[in-house]
Amino acid sequence: MTARIVELRKGVLEKNDLLAAGLRAQFADVDVRVSNWVSSPGTGKTALLELLLARAVERGIVAAALVGDCATDNDAQRLARSGAPVRQIVTEGMCHLEADMIGEHLSGWDLRALDLLVIENVGNLVCPSSYDLGEDVRVALLSVTEGEDKPVKYPQLFHSSDVVVVTKTDLAAAVEWDRDAALAAVAAVNPDATVVETSARTGAGIDDLLDLLSTRTPHLQEAP
Amino acid sequence: MTARIVELRKGVLEKNDLLAAGLRAQFADVDVRVSNWVSSPGTGKTALLELLLARAVERGIVAAALVGDCATDNDAQRLARSGAPVRQIVTEGMCHLEADMIGEHLSGWDLRALDLLVIENVGNLVCPSSYDLGEDVRVALLSVTEGEDKPVKYPQLFHSSDVVVVTKTDLAAAVEWDRDAALAAVAAVNPDATVVETSARTGAGIDDLLDLLSTRTPHLQEAP
Repeated sequence: MTARIVELRKGVLEKNDLLAAGLRAQFADVDVRVSNWVSSPGTGKTALLELLLARAVERGIVAAALVGDCATDNDAQRLARSGAPVRQIVTEGMCHLEADMIGEHLSGWDLRALDLLVIENVGNLVCPSSYDLGEDVRVALLSVTEGEDKPVKYPQLFHSSDVVVVTKTDLAAAVEWDRDAALAAVAAVNPDATVVETSARTGAGIDDLLDLLSTRTPHLQEAP
Repeated sequence: MTARIVELRKGVLEKNDLLAAGLRAQFADVDVRVSNWVSSPGTGKTALLELLLARAVERGIVAAALVGDCATDNDAQRLARSGAPVRQIVTEGMCHLEADMIGEHLSGWDLRALDLLVIENVGNLVCPSSYDLGEDVRVALLSVTEGEDKPVKYPQLFHSSDVVVVTKTDLAAAVEWDRDAALAAVAAVNPDATVVETSARTGAGIDDLLDLLSTRTPHLQEAP
């Protein structure tokens, strides 16, 4: 990249950080837990989120979702079946969500009524990691079908995430998933990450993930 | 994006297109077939390429590969086992390959000796689609574990590709892959794409893909 582009990109990120800080303060003020889900396309974010939202409804946790995609509102349609409020953000080819898109798409929602807001980012292991969306918890997802070394090949995302969710564990045997190698790869780039192993097919790990996302408040825990 | 960034980005793409046109002329001059492989992280590009290179060696087709990753040279190490020449391009966090990186990493190679050059792009379904690398054939890969609607959710890549490779077909039953739905999604964004169904585990489709990539020359076919 040329020096001018690096400089302009820096400006975009600084502006995004400011907007994200505003969102974070707003979320803390109304006491809603916000998570930002990032993974490759096809890791199973939507399938997992569908189950998580349905489970939240069953447990009386008030949850909502914003879902980002380059095109189509397929994901929002799938998620709406859970009964939770869902809005689609169509990025029209942009490869990640930015804080201003979150702000715009929250308008009209009563955040005070929510316990949990999940933001499903565009499927991309690289670009979303630079953009803070004001979340409490960044979640990196990794399916057992993707290969155990993804965390070390895409260190920026896995390093900047609080939670690593392993998906599709029901397929682990079929794809000869090397669990130890994958956990070692996560630990190599982020020894502090909380790892949750899940399957949208069997429901494994869903309640653990829901507990973690609806109660964890790192911005409060960081206070002295 | 601000107008200034859009303008600068346009300049970067125009410069890339010029460099790519130069590479394309160079490749045509020495009669090497070049393909640019793009997919999500975890689609199985490297596993398939490992098999393709080994099969090329067996069949006396002289092949080489350039592989892009944000970090690590894991992929180059895997591919080098085939006996074919392989070079890693580490993008240090950049989410796609650009034509200038290809030019730099070819230096010292005798392209005249090659029949086939495969460029494995960084795992990303969005950003690489804007960057021409001088390839004859753009290959979009989609694994059966990723979901049938990826082509319509990431239309820019699938629309701009000549070949769509379905990977991991050995897992189709385990993941309840809806083949008809996937082929319809491909046809919806790119009715002219050639679809090849493969499995790196069983070897299915590898020879068909090798035939296609080592003989197809769209830039010559386009001549009147």
